[in-house]
Amino acid sequence: MIEILFCGVCHSDLHTVRSEWGGATYPVVPGHEIVGRIVKVGNLVEKFSVGETAGVGCMVDSCRSCPSCEEGLEQYCEVGFTGTYNSPEPGLNTPTYGGYSNQIVVKEDFVLKIREDQDLARIAPLLCAGITTYSPLRHWKVGAGHKVAVVGLGGLGHMAVKLAASMGAEVTVLSTSPEKETDATDLGAHKFVVTKDPQALEEVKNTFDFIINTVSAKVSLDMYASLLRRDGTMILLGVPPEAPELQAATLIFGRRRIAGSLIGGIAETQEMLDYCAEHDILSDVEVIPVNYINEAYERMLEGDVKYRFVIDMASL
Amino acid sequence: MIEILFCGVCHSDLHTVRSEWGGATYPVVPGHEIVGRIVKVGNLVEKFSVGETAGVGCMVDSCRSCPSCEEGLEQYCEVGFTGTYNSPEPGLNTPTYGGYSNQIVVKEDFVLKIREDQDLARIAPLLCAGITTYSPLRHWKVGAGHKVAVVGLGGLGHMAVKLAASMGAEVTVLSTSPEKETDATDLGAHKFVVTKDPQALEEVKNTFDFIINTVSAKVSLDMYASLLRRDGTMILLGVPPEAPELQAATLIFGRRRIAGSLIGGIAETQEMLDYCAEHDILSDVEVIPVNYINEAYERMLEGDVKYRFVIDMASL
Repeated sequence: MIEILFCGVCHSDLHTVRSEWGGATYPVVPGHEIVGRIVKVGNLVEKFSVGETAGVGCMVDSCRSCPSCEEGLEQYCEVGFTGTYNSPEPGLNTPTYGGYSNQIVVKEDFVLKIREDQDLARIAPLLCAGITTYSPLRHWKVGAGHKVAVVGLGGLGHMAVKLAASMGAEVTVLSTSPEKETDATDLGAHKFVVTKDPQALEEVKNTFDFIINTVSAKVSLDMYASLLRRDGTMILLGVPPEAPELQAATLIFGRRRIAGSLIGGIAETQEMLDYCAEHDILSDVEVIPVNYINEAYERMLEGDVKYRFVIDMASL
Repeated sequence: MIEILFCGVCHSDLHTVRSEWGGATYPVVPGHEIVGRIVKVGNLVEKFSVGETAGVGCMVDSCRSCPSCEEGLEQYCEVGFTGTYNSPEPGLNTPTYGGYSNQIVVKEDFVLKIREDQDLARIAPLLCAGITTYSPLRHWKVGAGHKVAVVGLGGLGHMAVKLAASMGAEVTVLSTSPEKETDATDLGAHKFVVTKDPQALEEVKNTFDFIINTVSAKVSLDMYASLLRRDGTMILLGVPPEAPELQAATLIFGRRRIAGSLIGGIAETQEMLDYCAEHDILSDVEVIPVNYINEAYERMLEGDVKYRFVIDMASL
């Protein structure tokens, strides 16, 4: 049982609150970027003790026996993982309730260890935005010598910039807004390209080994894919409500690839938290009281947040 | 200088003849699946002698100095390779003219060696349909233990079935037409799924390591991608005139990938010809006289060919 100290505000929370993806079972308690303190443990719990700092991300359970679970890739559980909120609670008739709350009870295998000597509000978004960007960077072995572009400078995008740069890649932020250049540089990006400038775009054609595409609006996959070098990969992390179009020729002439990636497994999430602690990587956040949430949602929709709202649960 | 004996009829020929991709410079002489006999060699030619059997595929030159050319991937030449027909001839004002002809003169580095003791009409389609399917199978290291689906049982598709099966993969043909099952089995496919049958489709969801998609009509990328297992790849080989839609979620939930692949390099084309000779793999063809070509095009459009028309140049 975890007493929740901070919970990040993810775009998925808003999609679910408004049932934009369908299937919201009200009342919904959103929140899957949870950091808190352990206040009770069951008598079979072995990994955690009362008083320790702990985190919970997007999953609280999975089947634990399918090939994906056995490989530590619970996010691809073939039965379907149990989401931290609005997901059927295994064996019960109730949905799971998430982190906009004072407490949560989670099985120890889905709880993460968090080093205490850190700014806990800035750790919270690592549990979703951090792992969602860390996992593909690791899976595709991004590192020194790679040119990585990041599309969308929001919660996910700002973590992608920090993480890719920390791994030694040359990071370029692709943005429609010229005024984001300073922010991009502050986050650690080496280059900045305004995608509305045809000449600037032309100059980076065929250059990127990877594009981390965090945008969940309907954008042109072809325009971005054409910036990949031969054998380059664009990784999609956002789900647009409408399917974008994709010209096969853009992939064929250049043997380019488009892939998707979903959060990360529990072991990898722990690895990411340890990596961030070691490399002093934190999310940039605006801490809010819980009664500010509806305004926060509206500002999130306008992209008016640098880069993640985090609820201070002391305000509850 | 090669005296052309046989030339395969590729769908690209028809696209170019009708300028469906734009940019046809008439008169067009199509044909890039060429097999013939060497009748003359320049005095600097080292690899070929008069009287030898030789082949020419989709390329007759490239820049030879960009990173792709230096890696033997001339098909991705960053300056642009010189196509066998309807391509600007380097240093001249004329376009290249292809294989529906009695002779062709090609620089030796773009000429392939062909073993003489084979059915040469059935070799011709290997120069495009063969290498276009062989190259991705090799690049993605397809072999024993892999489940491979092939979409579209035409010139490319029938070669994909033969080649993937020869490499030890379990091959499934996905087709809208139940009547193609016998053909698929005859070509070496192990399984056959009618994609219009929802239950049959449901049974193969999340199962394929690779899908070789040869269709150049606008088809549902999502429907096929959902048949990939986690980390599976669909390789697009055909260029639909209209861009199909792609739901990011189909890739994200399963870390699936979609890639493109274009013919193959010269060294790999030679490797493919040697591989086919060794494994007794030939294209299934219908040999036609050249004055049948317009009827052949019409039949090709209706899918009424098993599986490639090849022009006997003795008829010219």
